[in-house]
Amino acid sequence: MNKRADSSVALHPLIAERWSPRAYDESATISPEDLSAIFEAARWAPSAFNSQPWKFIVGIRGDKKFTQISSVLSDFNKQWAPRASALILVNSLTLRDDGKQNPTALYDTGLAVSLLTVEANHRGFDVHQMSGFDSAMAKSTFALSTGVEPVACVAVGKRTSPDSLSDEIKAREIAPRSRKALNEIVNITW
Amino acid sequence: MNKRADSSVALHPLIAERWSPRAYDESATISPEDLSAIFEAARWAPSAFNSQPWKFIVGIRGDKKFTQISSVLSDFNKQWAPRASALILVNSLTLRDDGKQNPTALYDTGLAVSLLTVEANHRGFDVHQMSGFDSAMAKSTFALSTGVEPVACVAVGKRTSPDSLSDEIKAREIAPRSRKALNEIVNITW
Repeated sequence: MNKRADSSVALHPLIAERWSPRAYDESATISPEDLSAIFEAARWAPSAFNSQPWKFIVGIRGDKKFTQISSVLSDFNKQWAPRASALILVNSLTLRDDGKQNPTALYDTGLAVSLLTVEANHRGFDVHQMSGFDSAMAKSTFALSTGVEPVACVAVGKRTSPDSLSDEIKAREIAPRSRKALNEIVNITW
Repeated sequence: MNKRADSSVALHPLIAERWSPRAYDESATISPEDLSAIFEAARWAPSAFNSQPWKFIVGIRGDKKFTQISSVLSDFNKQWAPRASALILVNSLTLRDDGKQNPTALYDTGLAVSLLTVEANHRGFDVHQMSGFDSAMAKSTFALSTGVEPVACVAVGKRTSPDSLSDEIKAREIAPRSRKALNEIVNITW
């Protein structure tokens, strides 16, 4: 199954080969070192005024937090994501110290999670981010303070055969990847 | 000058060695291939429902768009960023096709720009993102439609000696990097 990005020039393999599988090996585990590394990658991301407006809750398959994060997923995502090795609830710290909105909190949180993904891929794990989860339930489940806003759930694990999926999900898994044309996202004048 | 991320475990060099310099070589240029690659990296980023809510305006030093992007920077950033090889105005497409807000637009745009940064670093360029710019002026300068929201300006270029900077900026350039502790951003239970 070739899922390599169809780009006009060669990209770094960690970017070209990144995609978001749903078929995870439910026997695969993630080590403390690998977990530390992916969060260190997020930790060292840039952010406006170095505010680092992110906070992660991680569950490892079999533990309580993993079950809690699984429970806030959409019904569709509940079908596949609990086979991952770890689930992460990504929260953005949307208020600054002075109580005002931090306008770049969500953007900066995205910056951090991309680097987490690159490090995970580098260590042989796949990553699939989900916006399909119940944010209010996540806030309540983890008793999140005001200004701690859940923005994504992230599955981290080892990819396995699409045959492990239901027909509906398998069809998505093997579908070709698509993107807008390059000249639709940037003025190419070169 | 050692700016390597001080992490508890070894990170991929593209992550460990990424930082945001302000001293750029004003004779360095960026090729069409390198520019294409960094935008291809952003293009292939993941986003919720594959909505790809980002749009970039790029200027190459010496051209009109570069001058326009320079003109919207804060006075502080105007001191150093125009020495970069390219300047990018990052815009997030904050409205969905149905006219409603896309709640993950900013987050997804951050995901894309991180991958742009990784590809740029891989190709020997440094990247420095700036929130210090006049967003209203950027909208007006580029006649951006409703729902096209400028979120960052990005300098891409080749790092040079901090001695090329004013004393004030040089002091920032050589200062140690700092981040919150790992256990402040994630529940470490391993």
